Amino acid sequence: MLLRCCHSLTRLGRLNTQRHQVAPAVASCAVRLWSSSEGQRSYQRAHGPSWRHALAGLLAGTGAVLAYGLHHHKAEQADTIKVQTIEKTSALPVFTQEEVTSHRSLEDGVWVTYKGAVYDITDFVAMHPGGDKILLAAGGDLEPFWALYAVHNQEHVLEILSEYKVGVLSAEDLKKQQTVKSSDPYSSDPKRHPVLRINSQKPFNAEPPPELLTDSYITPSAIFFKRNHLPVPQVDPASYRLHVEGLPGGVLTLSLEELKTRFPKHTITATLQCAGNRRSEMNQVKQVKGLNWGIAAISNATWSGARLRDVLLAAGYGPDVAKWACHVQFEGLDKDVTGTTYGSSIPLNKAVNEEGDVLLAYEMNGEDLPADHGYPVRVVVPGTVGARNVKWLGKIIVSAEESNSHWQQNDYKGFSPGTDWDTVDFKSAPAIQELPIQSAITTPADGAVVNRSGEEVTVKGYAWSGGGREVVRVDVSLDGGKTWQVAQLRSSEKEQAPKPSPPPGRAWAWKLWELTAPLPAEAQELEIVCKAVDTSYNMQPDTVPPIWNLRGVLSNAWHRVKVKIREDESEG
Amino acid sequence: MLLRCCHSLTRLGRLNTQRHQVAPAVASCAVRLWSSSEGQRSYQRAHGPSWRHALAGLLAGTGAVLAYGLHHHKAEQADTIKVQTIEKTSALPVFTQEEVTSHRSLEDGVWVTYKGAVYDITDFVAMHPGGDKILLAAGGDLEPFWALYAVHNQEHVLEILSEYKVGVLSAEDLKKQQTVKSSDPYSSDPKRHPVLRINSQKPFNAEPPPELLTDSYITPSAIFFKRNHLPVPQVDPASYRLHVEGLPGGVLTLSLEELKTRFPKHTITATLQCAGNRRSEMNQVKQVKGLNWGIAAISNATWSGARLRDVLLAAGYGPDVAKWACHVQFEGLDKDVTGTTYGSSIPLNKAVNEEGDVLLAYEMNGEDLPADHGYPVRVVVPGTVGARNVKWLGKIIVSAEESNSHWQQNDYKGFSPGTDWDTVDFKSAPAIQELPIQSAITTPADGAVVNRSGEEVTVKGYAWSGGGREVVRVDVSLDGGKTWQVAQLRSSEKEQAPKPSPPPGRAWAWKLWELTAPLPAEAQELEIVCKAVDTSYNMQPDTVPPIWNLRGVLSNAWHRVKVKIREDESEG
Repeated sequence: MLLRCCHSLTRLGRLNTQRHQVAPAVASCAVRLWSSSEGQRSYQRAHGPSWRHALAGLLAGTGAVLAYGLHHHKAEQADTIKVQTIEKTSALPVFTQEEVTSHRSLEDGVWVTYKGAVYDITDFVAMHPGGDKILLAAGGDLEPFWALYAVHNQEHVLEILSEYKVGVLSAEDLKKQQTVKSSDPYSSDPKRHPVLRINSQKPFNAEPPPELLTDSYITPSAIFFKRNHLPVPQVDPASYRLHVEGLPGGVLTLSLEELKTRFPKHTITATLQCAGNRRSEMNQVKQVKGLNWGIAAISNATWSGARLRDVLLAAGYGPDVAKWACHVQFEGLDKDVTGTTYGSSIPLNKAVNEEGDVLLAYEMNGEDLPADHGYPVRVVVPGTVGARNVKWLGKIIVSAEESNSHWQQNDYKGFSPGTDWDTVDFKSAPAIQELPIQSAITTPADGAVVNRSGEEVTVKGYAWSGGGREVVRVDVSLDGGKTWQVAQLRSSEKEQAPKPSPPPGRAWAWKLWELTAPLPAEAQELEIVCKAVDTSYNMQPDTVPPIWNLRGVLSNAWHRVKVKIREDESEG
Repeated sequence: MLLRCCHSLTRLGRLNTQRHQVAPAVASCAVRLWSSSEGQRSYQRAHGPSWRHALAGLLAGTGAVLAYGLHHHKAEQADTIKVQTIEKTSALPVFTQEEVTSHRSLEDGVWVTYKGAVYDITDFVAMHPGGDKILLAAGGDLEPFWALYAVHNQEHVLEILSEYKVGVLSAEDLKKQQTVKSSDPYSSDPKRHPVLRINSQKPFNAEPPPELLTDSYITPSAIFFKRNHLPVPQVDPASYRLHVEGLPGGVLTLSLEELKTRFPKHTITATLQCAGNRRSEMNQVKQVKGLNWGIAAISNATWSGARLRDVLLAAGYGPDVAKWACHVQFEGLDKDVTGTTYGSSIPLNKAVNEEGDVLLAYEMNGEDLPADHGYPVRVVVPGTVGARNVKWLGKIIVSAEESNSHWQQNDYKGFSPGTDWDTVDFKSAPAIQELPIQSAITTPADGAVVNRSGEEVTVKGYAWSGGGREVVRVDVSLDGGKTWQVAQLRSSEKEQAPKPSPPPGRAWAWKLWELTAPLPAEAQELEIVCKAVDTSYNMQPDTVPPIWNLRGVLSNAWHRVKVKIREDESEG
């Protein structure tokens, strides 16, 4: 699909004059974003020893794919004009670094260099889904930025760039540039389990094979899905400090030891799910922008730590604060070269409610948090989308406002299937917090073959709902949804006794389910479908297209797999 | 559909010997239910002056319909035997009332009389969805029981009964029976607005016309949907007492005046919805058991009263209580002749949570509660199914257990589409509390005609979700769900300024929505569809059959109406 898009793109081309036909609304949006990031221009300053040479990139991991899609869309709009590609490989002017550097705003034009060529990407800025982030490369070289996100290292990204070429960098400046060696900011990332299916290496994003996922009720940490937005920071536990800000008592600073000893240790079992889990099914309808997750960007673990509520109370939270504060913001220690950290926020009432169970977790499955999961401290916001469960937690801010991070404001939101990149208004949708009811089939795999002689088929999977809403039923169909059977639910390991239901609204963990049913006599193929129901009797939607959205999040339609029945016995 | 069923039924018939083939599981269930209602045998005692002569019925309002359906199902099972109806109109034995009265248990047989005939309904008991309730008529006459539920007064109910005829009552006993005149327990029900569409007169169940429903953001009390399970009790406000039980401080008794003056008056705007709203759409798939509600068993009002939380605290609620209590039960003052009151319960945490907003309401839309809505006091449990919002509130009981009422235990629960009356286990499903995301189109009506010359079509409707989850988007399709547009949402009256969003988890009121879109050029007919999304990004399921359930509750698939486009202009 992607390749087909590439081919159609190469048949098109665009004159400079057409580049100025960017939709005004999008352009003004980019200007607004630009002005809000004025304070972040100091991107060439070093931020600590391990970052000294890393002019690291600033795009979200999916940036190039997003940009590519939007670019492609614009290119399609130009289709009627049928202009020919203009090759700009020779006879182009030579620019000095100083000239390039003078173009670092929409007003002055946005120029960048890449491998000795100079590009005027002014018109591309509005098409870049990260908006302001791309401007941080303005006037400089792209290479160190792209080093952070391997997803840029694809042919079609270079194709897009080539159209914006306006000249070449002077030989002298090119030589200078090449002496600034960029190191790999991901070089200190931890080793990962080889069984993981990798969706993105840098930043690391991977999921376990589905059939392993539901082998155990508690997912082993090594195969728990990984969703990093930036390189894994190396944090020294001795010098680690957590800062709690925004409360009347001033800033509360806690060492790891203080967090562990001053507050009661609380343990919960909670399932985390990426907003993009099952995105690949949306891609099958129409290409979306984001990592191509299968059905396993979800896992279940026990988490231990201090309750966020207890820490906020110790830091001065009280009824007076609730009169003006509405959100609790989190900042990670994972950051890009400008010092911009990963960030998000949750509603205040989730944070302070006795029944919210939000943890500042320092243990996962009974051990110190692994590096990939936020060592030494992460937030666990049970019932809430993974993106709010900030890892490598550095700062907590009680605020009247949501986090203004990219991931809170311009990502992780749901839109109508009719909304496209031309019409999307990120302010019009709420940040995803609680997730909707979800389930999927982990066994058998799509395309599997079952033998007629076995007489039965066993179907297994998981089911979970956000907001602490317990899964109360999973329906399974072998005939594409015409008839349904009720699966057996399980909320503990196979050998363990069933656990009692948690209190209402505090069912944070998934249920595994299983159904063994006779093979239908006539069928040669089964379309196995599952759908789950939670305590609020929320149901999954039947099909993907009506919930398709441009970011491919919230993919929770019925899950379907097809299996063939092999007639392995002579009949009669 | 119902008529067709009747016809097929009259072609069938059943020998006495076949009646004993009731599924053992169902029969044992009935035995269990019977033993649990042993303590309620005193049904012939009078319960106060207005009830003296009313040997009133005990079935849920839908009892006859349910019984009919189950009976029909059993009859279908006997289809292969093709037995002929045996007429039992003559040459039947004569029984005395004493003989009839001696058959009042499953062990001794269950006999009843009706208009001078004697019936052995032993085998029918297991098919009666009310289970134990029918046994309260055992050994006596059906007529006063049926007087309470006009739904029994239908031909097919008599057809069912006729098959169980075993004899006639002695002339002497019949004469005695006729001297006990049954009065109409509904004679003191209030007058209702003539615009209401009545689904059941006794008890009164009615909904407003859809196009009126969304005319106003606050539904006028007169057309607010009515859902009564029993006759409307006449309550004297001066002698009214509310009893709060189960707390360490003993019973707290409050007069209406005390309720109004001892506790702060709290006002919320909350939408109530019947679990059976839109049941008629499930009936179109396959007949379910229950009142045939359209799309307007939902309405929105302001409610004022004391917070339940405050009253519970005054009655001695504290952290120690939370260690053993899990539920708050409510008993209405509406009761049948045995003194069994309408009852239900909600989870304790909803009742005591500061953000639960559960009210003991004494005002609706700024005035005293109307008689049909619970005068003088009702519970308003915002975000929760109508059935838990107990009217004419008499008693509150803090308990470790759910209400053991019929309506909590054996009704108002959701099941898989594959579950039928033979396999249903009411204990396997949770009582409905929070309701799932819902929306419907109120204008245009299904089958309406729009003129091509108007060039546009305006679609209006409502959207609401349970659990305080705010509606964040409504998608509307004019082509059956292929393409979607986003509707405008409104959370106040038309002339009023928009209201700010409520705090997370406390959006108790619906949103009205509207979309005006150009008429598609080619279309001769539109299939208009709506679907809503709440803050947890729950979506409505696409179609009805996969959420069909035997009680026809939780009907929240996309709502669809078809309209024709009239070409009223010459073209060109």
